[in-house]
Amino acid sequence: MTKYAILGFGTVGVGLAEVIADQKEKMSAAAGDELELGYILVRHDYPDSPFRDKLVRDFAVIESDPDVSVVAEVIGGVGPAYEYSKRAILAGKSVVSSNKELVATHGLELAELAKEHGVSYLFEGSVGGGIPLLRPLSRCLAANRIDEVYGILNGTTNYILTAMAEKGQAYGDALKKAQELGYAEADPTADVEGIDACRKTAILADMSFGGNLDPAAIPTTGITALEPADLELAKALGCAVKLLGHAIRREDGCVAFVAPHLVPLSHTLASINGVMNACAVRGSAVGEVVFCGPGAGRYPTASAVAADVADAVRHRADPMVPDLGRANGKLISPDGLASPWYVRAAAEADAVKNAFPGVKPVYGSTGECGFITEAMDKPALLGKLEGLDVRAVYRVLA
Amino acid sequence: MTKYAILGFGTVGVGLAEVIADQKEKMSAAAGDELELGYILVRHDYPDSPFRDKLVRDFAVIESDPDVSVVAEVIGGVGPAYEYSKRAILAGKSVVSSNKELVATHGLELAELAKEHGVSYLFEGSVGGGIPLLRPLSRCLAANRIDEVYGILNGTTNYILTAMAEKGQAYGDALKKAQELGYAEADPTADVEGIDACRKTAILADMSFGGNLDPAAIPTTGITALEPADLELAKALGCAVKLLGHAIRREDGCVAFVAPHLVPLSHTLASINGVMNACAVRGSAVGEVVFCGPGAGRYPTASAVAADVADAVRHRADPMVPDLGRANGKLISPDGLASPWYVRAAAEADAVKNAFPGVKPVYGSTGECGFITEAMDKPALLGKLEGLDVRAVYRVLA
Repeated sequence: MTKYAILGFGTVGVGLAEVIADQKEKMSAAAGDELELGYILVRHDYPDSPFRDKLVRDFAVIESDPDVSVVAEVIGGVGPAYEYSKRAILAGKSVVSSNKELVATHGLELAELAKEHGVSYLFEGSVGGGIPLLRPLSRCLAANRIDEVYGILNGTTNYILTAMAEKGQAYGDALKKAQELGYAEADPTADVEGIDACRKTAILADMSFGGNLDPAAIPTTGITALEPADLELAKALGCAVKLLGHAIRREDGCVAFVAPHLVPLSHTLASINGVMNACAVRGSAVGEVVFCGPGAGRYPTASAVAADVADAVRHRADPMVPDLGRANGKLISPDGLASPWYVRAAAEADAVKNAFPGVKPVYGSTGECGFITEAMDKPALLGKLEGLDVRAVYRVLA
Repeated sequence: MTKYAILGFGTVGVGLAEVIADQKEKMSAAAGDELELGYILVRHDYPDSPFRDKLVRDFAVIESDPDVSVVAEVIGGVGPAYEYSKRAILAGKSVVSSNKELVATHGLELAELAKEHGVSYLFEGSVGGGIPLLRPLSRCLAANRIDEVYGILNGTTNYILTAMAEKGQAYGDALKKAQELGYAEADPTADVEGIDACRKTAILADMSFGGNLDPAAIPTTGITALEPADLELAKALGCAVKLLGHAIRREDGCVAFVAPHLVPLSHTLASINGVMNACAVRGSAVGEVVFCGPGAGRYPTASAVAADVADAVRHRADPMVPDLGRANGKLISPDGLASPWYVRAAAEADAVKNAFPGVKPVYGSTGECGFITEAMDKPALLGKLEGLDVRAVYRVLA
């Protein structure tokens, strides 16, 4: 019998307690021991919860119970989540987390601390929600040098972009609908400005290339500047518009950035709609594999955190800490990265063909045109765009 | 230092030796110990191979070396592969395998034997080639009751179907091209008749629902009866044609079958072209996740087998044997499974609409029509088809 504790009783916390209870037998088999929920750390009373006899308000109760060997941190944010994670590790308990903000900013420190104290630190639920992603990346692809990771890492923005594409909605209307449905928060900044996707990109890059990137330093463009015309022209050009987190290995560091991309409809990522997420991984032996599924939500995220709980219990004698590399990795600007580009401009076809011989501009209902260039880096693109009345520029996934 | 041996020096065997040598450091980290290639069991001489000093022709050499703790069986087939796997386990060595035929037919027996002798038995490479699939299914989705598994599990047939769809080729021409490119064998029976996909379906069903299904009992239809007209009509109906292995949990057993399906173009599986594979898994907590990637090939398959080697070494004290359930699970006929159906018929639109009110037949270049019915089981479909000149019937993935 192994006792575990949950920190936080929000969406994921409730789901976690439920799924572990629901799949008692399978979880015990995976963990190699029966799991017992010891405590749930809360800030409020939940007198009607079936877990009410497990609720505690003081983390010290969990910290000082030597029988608790795994702590699932699903509080979110960096304040108490950070403090409790550290204290749990110092008390010899494994910590599992779905907290992308904490993992992206303090993951390496917590991982080192966990190694030092002989406990596991796992965070499968922090990227891609329920999609098995980090464990496959670190375990199943152990025989690969990871060269590139990119994907749709935020469900809220993918919902908005899907609505804009399918219903021709403006960004503001699609956002409002997403808020009504509970897919976007009242303050949607972290999602729509790409901050959430950026944190996940940092975690993926750290796991793939090392480097402990500072998410605040990763060039990040959200979806707020996209106009219905971009979705319309993208479709006419045979593409979907997706917000991608993108990280590429370089000899002396890595290129990492978050930005809207045009994705050719033949690419698997173009089929990922609504709140779904997907992540492609390119490895030296395997080539490219893609993982798709629900990137958020109570039970999907709980599914990922529960798997970490089972692994932490199973590996008590041989703790698991994914390799996040070392601090101070070099973050390289994406400007030098060559790719085809999508351009929206108010321009005659002749002017476009003059600047970009061979491209075929398409015209949308706004009278503006859209076209896709050959592969080139950003300075080359900007040079060629001089003199054109350019309204929008995004990379095309090649 | 841990010694491992490779049985077989064909496509996968060579790749395995190479990728483990190539990613020495990562593999050691994942395995928790440095790996040393001890032997490669061969039937021929390879005087020019960089691994020539490791080649042996007598399995007894490997069997009797107490330093070899993991054996990678990549011989294929059931004869010597089966015998050596058993002998290796009996000698206290973990066995990892990419051999779907052996795992589908004797997997449970070998798994039980491995448990008995305290060693690991892993076979990630047997389904989906390089795609991380079985480990995510058993480990990452531990908190889920798996309800359904389906996917494109054979690259050869997917290559042929893609060529038929994109180039309008006839089945025989597409097969010939696949053989020229090395994607299909001289005797393509196991691929094109669905036997290979059936073995993988059996493994997925066993891992998802238990039951130890006999692959020979799983209703299996290959792609040989598909005509260019089916591909043409499917496209007009907004679908791709894919050979799917499909297994669904039932209270008293499971439905498992292999057959061509029409897949709506909006579904992720419709974007999986050429030799790529993809598998969808529906779990009680996570919902649906999809894993895509190269389903065969030297380095992708070696990538999967190498991950098993690392895990077998890492878990020497706590062996890993995926749960394949118990023998004698009930295999339920798919006939009772309701789904929409695609029908190709030589019929006037009125006759079709008479039998299936509300459907919209489309007409192709052969003069035959294609249409998609409402969801119904097979007996109901056959009843409604009476009197129509039906040329082909396939399920539509709903």
